Amino acid sequence: LIYFNAFAYAQSPNALYQASTINAILQGVYDGELTIKDLKDQGDFGIGTLNGLDGELIGLDGEYYQIKADGQVLKLEGNVKVPFATSSNFKPDRFAELHDLNYEQLQKSLDKITNDKNYFYAVRIDGVFENVKTRAIPKQTKPYKTLTEAAKDQTVFDLNNIKGTIIGFWCPQYVNGVNVPGYHLHFISDDRKYGGHILTGSLKSGKVQIARITDFRMVLPQDASDFGKAALNEDYSEELKAVEQ
Amino acid sequence: LIYFNAFAYAQSPNALYQASTINAILQGVYDGELTIKDLKDQGDFGIGTLNGLDGELIGLDGEYYQIKADGQVLKLEGNVKVPFATSSNFKPDRFAELHDLNYEQLQKSLDKITNDKNYFYAVRIDGVFENVKTRAIPKQTKPYKTLTEAAKDQTVFDLNNIKGTIIGFWCPQYVNGVNVPGYHLHFISDDRKYGGHILTGSLKSGKVQIARITDFRMVLPQDASDFGKAALNEDYSEELKAVEQ
Ligand SMILES: [Zn+2]
Ligand SMILES: [Zn+2]
Repeated sequence: LIYFNAFAYAQSPNALYQASTINAILQGVYDGELTIKDLKDQGDFGIGTLNGLDGELIGLDGEYYQIKADGQVLKLEGNVKVPFATSSNFKPDRFAELHDLNYEQLQKSLDKITNDKNYFYAVRIDGVFENVKTRAIPKQTKPYKTLTEAAKDQTVFDLNNIKGTIIGFWCPQYVNGVNVPGYHLHFISDDRKYGGHILTGSLKSGKVQIARITDFRMVLPQDASDFGKAALNEDYSEELKAVEQ
Repeated sequence: LIYFNAFAYAQSPNALYQASTINAILQGVYDGELTIKDLKDQGDFGIGTLNGLDGELIGLDGEYYQIKADGQVLKLEGNVKVPFATSSNFKPDRFAELHDLNYEQLQKSLDKITNDKNYFYAVRIDGVFENVKTRAIPKQTKPYKTLTEAAKDQTVFDLNNIKGTIIGFWCPQYVNGVNVPGYHLHFISDDRKYGGHILTGSLKSGKVQIARITDFRMVLPQDASDFGKAALNEDYSEELKAVEQ
C-alpha cells in the first residue's frame, strides 16, 4: 500500500499518455519510436499495437503483453517499440459490479458510469465472460497497407467461458483523428494465454473500475519520413468504425 | 548561453502545453483553473485568454501580458487564471528573414518553413509592421454567451508603423475541436503598450523563428460543472474560422 501511494503521487494519476495518432495507424504508419519502457514510465495500464502492426498490446498491473495473430501471448521487454499506444497510471475513482450483459448492454452500463462525455476515461473490468471475441492482426511487411486492408488478414479468437480482464479507454468525439472516439478495449485471460482487441463479448459477472482522465499527452514521432508524409488531416471516422469495432 | 542550454534540457523544449479546448471557449466555458504560473512552468512563450474572456493573453520571453478591450496592456501575476491558453518553451529550429508581405503572403511564407502538416509549430516573428490589426474581447458576465456572440463586442486596434513581436502556434487540421487548425497568432508592441489577437496585418521586415513541436499536452478542468456540460463534441469549424481569423 505504501508503494502504491508513492507511485501514484510521483506521477500524475489521471493522465493519459499516447504514442502517435490513430489517423497515422489508419494510414499505415506502423513503425514508431516509443518503447514499452516509455509506456511503463507513464503508466501501469495500457493498450495499443507493436511496430509492424505485430499483434495487439495490453498493459496490466505494470506488465505489458503482446497478443500475436497466431495466438501466442508474450510478455514484452522494455526495448520493444510501438507505433500507436495509450497508457495511464490507473487510479480508479468509479466502481461497479455488473452481470449478465451482452456487449451493447455492457457499453451502456459503462456509459452511465462515465457520464460526462467531455473527458477521457480509463476502463478496467475483471470478470467472468460467457464469450469474448477478440482479434489480432499479423505483422505487416513494407510497403505497408492501410489498417482497413491489413485488418482483412486478422485472426479472430472466439473465447468461451473465460476469466480475464478488459483494459481500455473511452475518448470523447472531439479527439476524432487523434484517438478512437468511444470505447477501445483489449482483453487478456487470467492465465495470460489468450487475448486481443475486443470485437464483441458477453459478461457473466465483473468488477468495473473507471478513472476519469483530465490530463492528455500525445508524443509524435521525431522522424518525419513516414509520419510527416501520411495524409493525417482527412476524416477517417467511417474507416475507423469499420476496423476498430 | 549556459543558462539557455540548462533551461532547454531541464524542460522539454519542443512541447506544447494547453489549458482546456478551443471548443470549450467556442461554447462559452470562460472560467478555467490553470494559472499564469502553470503556463510559465511549462513555457516562456504563449497565447490565450483570461478568465471571463477578459482580453487577450500573450507570453513572451517568460513574461505574460493581458491586452484588455479598452487597450490597456498589463503584466500578469502568477495567480491569474486562464480558461484557454497554450504555452511552450520556445527553442526554434527554423529561421528566416522576411520582408514586404501582406498577411496572406506572410502565412504562405511561414507554410514553406513549417512544411510537414502533421506536426505542431510555435511561431515567433520580431519585426517592423506597416500595419497590424488586432482585437480584444471585453470581459463577459454570466450567463456566458458563445464566443461568436461575445466577439461581436470586440474592440479592433489598427496599429500602423509599429515594431513588435508576433507569437503563436500553427496546429494540424486533425486537432480540430481541440485547438485552432492553422495559424493562431497574437501581437505585442516593443514598448508593451499595444497588442491583441491578430486579425490581419502587413510586414515590412521581420526575423522569423519557428519550432516544430512533437509533444502535445492538454489539461482539462477538474471541475465538470461548466466544462462537463458544454456541447464540445460538435463540429464548430465554421464558427471558429469566422471568429478567430
Ligand atoms: Zn485495439
Ligand atoms: Zn487569440
